[in-house]
Amino acid sequence: MNQLTKKHCIVLLSGGLDSATVLSIARKDFEVTALTFDYGQRHKFELTAAQEIAKKNKITLNEIKIDLAQFGNSALTDNISVPKNQEIGKEIPVTYVPVRNTIFLSYALAFAEVNQIFDIFIGVNALDYSGYPDCRPEFIDSFEKMANQATKFTQGDKKIKIHTPLIDLTKAEIITEGLKLGVDYSMTHSCYDPSEAGLSCGECDACILRKAGFAAADITDPTNYK
Amino acid sequence: MNQLTKKHCIVLLSGGLDSATVLSIARKDFEVTALTFDYGQRHKFELTAAQEIAKKNKITLNEIKIDLAQFGNSALTDNISVPKNQEIGKEIPVTYVPVRNTIFLSYALAFAEVNQIFDIFIGVNALDYSGYPDCRPEFIDSFEKMANQATKFTQGDKKIKIHTPLIDLTKAEIITEGLKLGVDYSMTHSCYDPSEAGLSCGECDACILRKAGFAAADITDPTNYK
Repeated sequence: MNQLTKKHCIVLLSGGLDSATVLSIARKDFEVTALTFDYGQRHKFELTAAQEIAKKNKITLNEIKIDLAQFGNSALTDNISVPKNQEIGKEIPVTYVPVRNTIFLSYALAFAEVNQIFDIFIGVNALDYSGYPDCRPEFIDSFEKMANQATKFTQGDKKIKIHTPLIDLTKAEIITEGLKLGVDYSMTHSCYDPSEAGLSCGECDACILRKAGFAAADITDPTNYK
Repeated sequence: MNQLTKKHCIVLLSGGLDSATVLSIARKDFEVTALTFDYGQRHKFELTAAQEIAKKNKITLNEIKIDLAQFGNSALTDNISVPKNQEIGKEIPVTYVPVRNTIFLSYALAFAEVNQIFDIFIGVNALDYSGYPDCRPEFIDSFEKMANQATKFTQGDKKIKIHTPLIDLTKAEIITEGLKLGVDYSMTHSCYDPSEAGLSCGECDACILRKAGFAAADITDPTNYK
């Protein structure tokens, strides 16, 4: 490989604030292919955001259609109310989608193996987050170990690396870093319960974390709230 | 829970010889729900076999439809010739489907979490096998560790266990054990490249391992070969 040629990587791009930031971080050192998942979520504003972010960054976006709604038990796939103005971090909320990141990363691993890509980026964050178990460093570490046992293309120095550049950052630090890299946060979508027109509710966990992040970073929040 | 009530488990049932045996082993101690995957494989004889085996055993079979053919690179999903009469175990053959067992087990984990089931059975075997990396005990151990970090329902003693009762058995031992438990191997399908009428080719890795297993166990092979 030419010394000037960047290595390829996969970025899981949901269309949210975190993954848009990860994309810009990954682009510094890698050629990026993005994956996004149409998994049966109740609204598609995230997917549209992912498409627009990919287009702006001139990268290929692969949309993978899977059905996590068949398992139910989440406010993000089922007809369960999204909690509003709740205390964040006390317990794992009903917006948790069982095994979502495991399934997303497993598909990313299949894509990685077939395309001989060893680096996968995911925007998990264990600080300003809702307490989902599959966003913690312990989960990522164990997934990475498993990934290196699961495939036939990892050998010797050639190992799968799951990159989590946001894992220890506050939401304010993520936003500050993203703005340095030129992320346009008005293109990103965080809200779990948007209006039909796509306006953010301002009261779900995702909106509360997002608003608090912009406030702490002393940046004007470009989000359109109801 | 009543002391006489069996715990629930999930069995991954492909319709092959191994998973049919696992089902009968699991039934001794558990109430079984089976999962099977329509994953874009080139033929559906396995799926039909899984349905018939589930019916005979009077267990619920959940068929999960996913698309591994989109990743390509396997003779089991693509228009790549299935190798015949090759030396088994020298290298990982083109019948390997990238990351298949990781994805299957991830879906099983989602089903487990939603249904509060802690025991998952899979018929992997690292002795009379084609060398697939995701059939080895190292992979299963690492998946189990990851599974216990990935979910919110595992706490304290309540841990996910991935059961692999066949992992150290020869094909002959598997068949002998299955026959003791009443498995009807004429209902199972192993061949990677059957005729349109469903006759087994007798020459692919799966057929060769199956035939050698029956021969070593000194049991008449009930399979219909071409």
